[in-house]
Amino acid sequence: MTQPLWQKAGIQIDAKIMRFLAGDDVLLDREFFLHDITASKAHVEGLANIGVVSTDEAAALKRELDALAEDFTSGAFLLDERYEDGHSAIEARLTERLGDAGRRVHTGRSRNDQILVATRLWLKDKLAALEAHCRAIAEACLERASQEAVPMPGYTHLQRAVVSSTAMWFAGFAEGFIDNVLRARQTMTLIDANPLGTAAGYGVNMKLDREHTTRALGFARMQISPIYAQLSRGKFEMAVLEAIGGALLDLRRLAWDLSLFTTAEFNFVRLPAEYTTGSSIMPNKRNPDVIELLRASYASVAAARTEIEQLLSLPSGYQRDLQFSKGSLFHGVRHGLGALELVPDLLARLEWNAGAMRAAIEPAMYATDVAIEQAAAGVPFRDAYRAAAETAASAGQGRTPEGSLAARVSPGAGNDLRLDELRVRLRELDG
Amino acid sequence: MTQPLWQKAGIQIDAKIMRFLAGDDVLLDREFFLHDITASKAHVEGLANIGVVSTDEAAALKRELDALAEDFTSGAFLLDERYEDGHSAIEARLTERLGDAGRRVHTGRSRNDQILVATRLWLKDKLAALEAHCRAIAEACLERASQEAVPMPGYTHLQRAVVSSTAMWFAGFAEGFIDNVLRARQTMTLIDANPLGTAAGYGVNMKLDREHTTRALGFARMQISPIYAQLSRGKFEMAVLEAIGGALLDLRRLAWDLSLFTTAEFNFVRLPAEYTTGSSIMPNKRNPDVIELLRASYASVAAARTEIEQLLSLPSGYQRDLQFSKGSLFHGVRHGLGALELVPDLLARLEWNAGAMRAAIEPAMYATDVAIEQAAAGVPFRDAYRAAAETAASAGQGRTPEGSLAARVSPGAGNDLRLDELRVRLRELDG
Amino acid sequence: MTQPLWQKAGIQIDAKIMRFLAGDDVLLDREFFLHDITASKAHVEGLANIGVVSTDEAAALKRELDALAEDFTSGAFLLDERYEDGHSAIEARLTERLGDAGRRVHTGRSRNDQILVATRLWLKDKLAALEAHCRAIAEACLERASQEAVPMPGYTHLQRAVVSSTAMWFAGFAEGFIDNVLRARQTMTLIDANPLGTAAGYGVNMKLDREHTTRALGFARMQISPIYAQLSRGKFEMAVLEAIGGALLDLRRLAWDLSLFTTAEFNFVRLPAEYTTGSSIMPNKRNPDVIELLRASYASVAAARTEIEQLLSLPSGYQRDLQFSKGSLFHGVRHGLGALELVPDLLARLEWNAGAMRAAIEPAMYATDVAIEQAAAGVPFRDAYRAAAETAASAGQGRTPEGSLAARVSPGAGNDLRLDELRVRLRELDG
Amino acid sequence: MTQPLWQKAGIQIDAKIMRFLAGDDVLLDREFFLHDITASKAHVEGLANIGVVSTDEAAALKRELDALAEDFTSGAFLLDERYEDGHSAIEARLTERLGDAGRRVHTGRSRNDQILVATRLWLKDKLAALEAHCRAIAEACLERASQEAVPMPGYTHLQRAVVSSTAMWFAGFAEGFIDNVLRARQTMTLIDANPLGTAAGYGVNMKLDREHTTRALGFARMQISPIYAQLSRGKFEMAVLEAIGGALLDLRRLAWDLSLFTTAEFNFVRLPAEYTTGSSIMPNKRNPDVIELLRASYASVAAARTEIEQLLSLPSGYQRDLQFSKGSLFHGVRHGLGALELVPDLLARLEWNAGAMRAAIEPAMYATDVAIEQAAAGVPFRDAYRAAAETAASAGQGRTPEGSLAARVSPGAGNDLRLDELRVRLRELDG
Repeated sequence: MTQPLWQKAGIQIDAKIMRFLAGDDVLLDREFFLHDITASKAHVEGLANIGVVSTDEAAALKRELDALAEDFTSGAFLLDERYEDGHSAIEARLTERLGDAGRRVHTGRSRNDQILVATRLWLKDKLAALEAHCRAIAEACLERASQEAVPMPGYTHLQRAVVSSTAMWFAGFAEGFIDNVLRARQTMTLIDANPLGTAAGYGVNMKLDREHTTRALGFARMQISPIYAQLSRGKFEMAVLEAIGGALLDLRRLAWDLSLFTTAEFNFVRLPAEYTTGSSIMPNKRNPDVIELLRASYASVAAARTEIEQLLSLPSGYQRDLQFSKGSLFHGVRHGLGALELVPDLLARLEWNAGAMRAAIEPAMYATDVAIEQAAAGVPFRDAYRAAAETAASAGQGRTPEGSLAARVSPGAGNDLRLDELRVRLRELDG
Repeated sequence: MTQPLWQKAGIQIDAKIMRFLAGDDVLLDREFFLHDITASKAHVEGLANIGVVSTDEAAALKRELDALAEDFTSGAFLLDERYEDGHSAIEARLTERLGDAGRRVHTGRSRNDQILVATRLWLKDKLAALEAHCRAIAEACLERASQEAVPMPGYTHLQRAVVSSTAMWFAGFAEGFIDNVLRARQTMTLIDANPLGTAAGYGVNMKLDREHTTRALGFARMQISPIYAQLSRGKFEMAVLEAIGGALLDLRRLAWDLSLFTTAEFNFVRLPAEYTTGSSIMPNKRNPDVIELLRASYASVAAARTEIEQLLSLPSGYQRDLQFSKGSLFHGVRHGLGALELVPDLLARLEWNAGAMRAAIEPAMYATDVAIEQAAAGVPFRDAYRAAAETAASAGQGRTPEGSLAARVSPGAGNDLRLDELRVRLRELDG
Repeated sequence: MTQPLWQKAGIQIDAKIMRFLAGDDVLLDREFFLHDITASKAHVEGLANIGVVSTDEAAALKRELDALAEDFTSGAFLLDERYEDGHSAIEARLTERLGDAGRRVHTGRSRNDQILVATRLWLKDKLAALEAHCRAIAEACLERASQEAVPMPGYTHLQRAVVSSTAMWFAGFAEGFIDNVLRARQTMTLIDANPLGTAAGYGVNMKLDREHTTRALGFARMQISPIYAQLSRGKFEMAVLEAIGGALLDLRRLAWDLSLFTTAEFNFVRLPAEYTTGSSIMPNKRNPDVIELLRASYASVAAARTEIEQLLSLPSGYQRDLQFSKGSLFHGVRHGLGALELVPDLLARLEWNAGAMRAAIEPAMYATDVAIEQAAAGVPFRDAYRAAAETAASAGQGRTPEGSLAARVSPGAGNDLRLDELRVRLRELDG
Repeated sequence: MTQPLWQKAGIQIDAKIMRFLAGDDVLLDREFFLHDITASKAHVEGLANIGVVSTDEAAALKRELDALAEDFTSGAFLLDERYEDGHSAIEARLTERLGDAGRRVHTGRSRNDQILVATRLWLKDKLAALEAHCRAIAEACLERASQEAVPMPGYTHLQRAVVSSTAMWFAGFAEGFIDNVLRARQTMTLIDANPLGTAAGYGVNMKLDREHTTRALGFARMQISPIYAQLSRGKFEMAVLEAIGGALLDLRRLAWDLSLFTTAEFNFVRLPAEYTTGSSIMPNKRNPDVIELLRASYASVAAARTEIEQLLSLPSGYQRDLQFSKGSLFHGVRHGLGALELVPDLLARLEWNAGAMRAAIEPAMYATDVAIEQAAAGVPFRDAYRAAAETAASAGQGRTPEGSLAARVSPGAGNDLRLDELRVRLRELDG
């Protein structure tokens, strides 16, 4: 590793300590590097606006920043352990290419606000992806809910309870993922604030053009207080992970359903072949591994959140502890979004085994219908319930799943799924 | 305990099992009982609208529900282990007083949507309290930030870094708690949906007047899908705990600051005497216990969230596992809001020790000012930085904290705290 | 509440603050009260040994401590909000009854080591209960494993994989709970150290007879360092919760199995009627609620551990934050042990549905047997595997579950369960 | 990626799904690869013992396994995305080099027990490292505790309480890390069981020589039940992370102390220069980054544990969810052990600022000494306490820190640190 920017002469840092300090930092910075470059361009413009760099210098710096972005993308520039971190790499490159102009780029900023703004832009990208994935899942669910209504057993306590349908099942997850879209957007509103220009957490003695950088980087507002800019590190990361986590919670339950439905015992669902794998020892197996990993993905989001949560028991002001938030953030977001991305196609291509589901609908599952019919006819419900309990086995005689669904007229149920209301809500959440 | 409503004749449940099943359930239901009664009234009105109970029965049921609420509040009615849970207690009381009308009250609803709606109303109350507490804290911070600007050291890594001020410190937490107000409101929008009328998670064969109950209970929208109503149990609880947790994260850092500032070594702050306690063995001690418990309160919110998160690895549909979410929810919300409630008064009455803070501002803390001045004068920042690093000790000669703050002209810092912008933002978040 | 022991004259504490400080503390102290009294008796003996209290005073103090324990147990003495905490209540009572002797009881000790020793004794009791429950579960499993060998499908990925048996299933959990016994014992060894006599965390200027109290209270060793005594608070609590958690992890998986096995689709198991409950709306339902709450109980242990973990980001020395560890500890331990306690009886009384399990064993499940037979006969396994994969459907012709189990001769499997080895291991873990 | 071993002809797996399934799996397998090879050699020996491979084949397989280990270590063999995982890579290589003998190596084993045994060996290595690090820390603490006794303030609630010393501080952490050694050893005993030979979780129809592999791989016992072998996956990983976490909890508190002690306000400690770093913007800063990252490292261990804990809500039998345990395990163990490794040197080279610590010892800190002296002289302690509270300020007149420490004669405190007892305990924990 090259000598750190801040290193004083004559102090030699032990390799083991250096390694511990660096961790995977520079590798993780690859993830944020393009955003760091984008923010650096806005910072250069801001410096030009207040005369710290000349117009020519600004043009040169921005040109070199663009070139660096290109080289990074093409692989011509490799961000690796030669650099302390991505921030130092940018300054080093600009200085190497442009001399004094490069040495001016860090004026009025600290790595503290530099990492904040790069991470903030990255988080915004990820929230946009979260919204898009949740929207696609909701749409896939609405589409299928509107096209089919295969009767299936409805469960409580994993016990057969009343008649349900695949349309009801899809509508349920549709509404869930609409809420997840809402939450992605709310979280965007929460974090859409520009921390650039807050320096090490206390501002600087220079009238930085924060209005410009806020506008140029597309932030909805300036994060005003430098002290709060620091306090928001980790807090905003957690909010994003919680928004992703909310969606993954729903996915975990969806995957659990499919995990059960693909057992031989339930046998309600056939997965497309590419969603299954074989065993190394048992020749007969086809395993729903994708479903299991979708279910498991919540754990990665939870772990990332825990790691940051554990770090944040600190006084105000930047502390190095926060470095560890990068790796966990990347881990959790990558797993979470990677799982959600697969879901729309999976849902679109699920095949129900209508016969098995119908066979699983037992006569006793009409008992609630019977009790409520009697209640509607004037028998006090609790008496109707007791009567139906005694005759549960014979309750369903002459009844059909379709009849039960048609009679299920409470709003949101049976054949009154109100998909249009859900569609309107989803559309109104659009930009 | 009386025989459960659903109990079949001839089966005797073992006391140990009964105890395990019941847990603290009925005691916890006290917390939700008034909301359960409120929702029951709306349900009765809905049943009257569709003719399941007569107008007279509805009036009687509502009158008895009001009476029960009064008796509960006054202590004349004790919700205790004689009842399986609060829901059964309501039906039992109504049946005892009104006979058949009481036996009709559960028509078209399940304990599943009954607990959902009672909890939802309770959560809305708690979010309103969260918003109010965060608003009060933000206002207390803005007030003090606008009235004082005592110089204090600004820290990074807990090392003295640059000059800061108490106004900057208060402004930082002000912006944090404004974000916390925003988040409380966003979470309200997320959960403000009526689950009543979704029954056991699949609707019923009866045209329940869900529009009426939605309006009567003041919900912003109907939660349409019965399946999603069940999926949202736990998910919404977690969202609320996360919103409280966001505020408590900021409070944990604020409390950490005060914990340090009240050490003899820092000696920056004097707490009002009632915020301190003594020791059982050391006669000389005055301990900042309140500060420590404020700091610790995050842990209770985190624990509650963890408990629910762990429960939610389940297929869709109601499962009894979710019963355990009640206790943890109550635990986390109570501790979290209880801590926030104390903060406005504490902040309003903190006394700074201006002399100690001024004495802690060392000349080297002006080095950044010096480097940036030179950068403004044309020296490339990295060169100015290196020069200042070598003369750090002498950097501050002739400088004052007030001068440093006055020169700190980047937006949000020094004397340009932009409190008015923060005030506007807080006001615009008002209902 | 009475005036705290440490209160200085003239300072009035606000009721809201008082409530926040106290929390449920005194109610939680009921849980530890008898242990506090036990430790107080040992402390008194220690003081007598070094002449701080006279022999007569010691006798009187011990007599009154015994009387207090009796009054507490009988309900004649109520530990409630009149007292700041259990510790103060003991001193107040002794002073009220014995005057100066009572005022001497706190000599050389602090509430810090007083709560440590009471909690330590309580934790030891709970670990003993954990060991006993795990042992009873292991024994119940071994008993059933030795008495039956009903064929059942063995699953991986919840897909039918190879033939298994109920004996194999019981043997698996037997070995798990033997490990849990081991861990309970190891944790006992870890925490079995006497903190009494470490005062506020720095010892005292008095030659306390710690050897005596260590012996009298039945500790295996003295916890030597007063600073470490404080550091171990929370750390030991977490270790105990982790030991309980290890057992509950196994129970969660066992409960998951039973939750699946009691679905209509699997239909492998019938629970005794008292382990099921009914529904408030669906007359036809019998729900395996106990199984679900057993599964859910891990969450409470996890939450308790999280709460303490979050508290422990602190410098050394006692801090009031730790007060919150009491409630969470009690919550987690109570739920965890309460769940384990039910398991032996449940396991002893499970009834398998042999027919349903046999019907679920498909011919393809013998494919691995076929492949390995061929491998034993000289065909390279990978080739045998490929061949068997192609003929999986016909693989099992003429084979029986019993035959497959009889041929499963790898140690620990099929009919070579080695229950005697497990029994020996369990016995050797005995005291 | 090459076609998976288990792949059936004619099914094309989508690249996005493939990527999701694979994750970082093969890269993570690098970490376990040498252990996988070691276990494969033992497996080959076992197969030879029962005649499945010939003596010549066994010799050839072992020779090629050794060669593969060498090639992997030297970099000549690269385990990368060309392989599905490390297990497949081994079989592919052996088959490529040895034909049929290679195709025989997977006889009687599954990737399920293959990954179990490789991970188990890896965990044992890591526990040995944990023990070694904890032992080294304990020894460093004992060494310093025996060589110095610089007076320092003892704190409770971060408030100056009574006189302490650096020797007492070191002795406290010494005892903590001795307990951590114990726990590392206990955890070793818990997990030191051979899962190889349990196949996919149900054994095989072949008399595998599990006694041989158990002995050859140095396990203390056989993990008997194949079903439990699967249940222990994740459970044992958590136990190891909890053991590491116990040590990191102590380290977090130690790092917190040092973080405070290196503030300008406390100024008790000087760190060796290589443990500090500079700032990118503030020329005057030297930051204790290493200390902060040591403190933060607990979070990584906690996150890893959380990830696995979240995965383990599953029925028995292998499920693909568990794949995600690998990455988190590696993450947590690496961070945890990486932090502990640095501590002995750091502790050995800390320099105390004796003057600053002495100056921080105020007269009021002798008040407890005074009260206890009077209690020893016959005044009831509570009266002595009240008297001392009133004269706290003047309590210390004529007293010295050395005098206070010399009088601190309760076992474990002052000058009676009982380091020899601690040393004996540590020695007795030796192999």
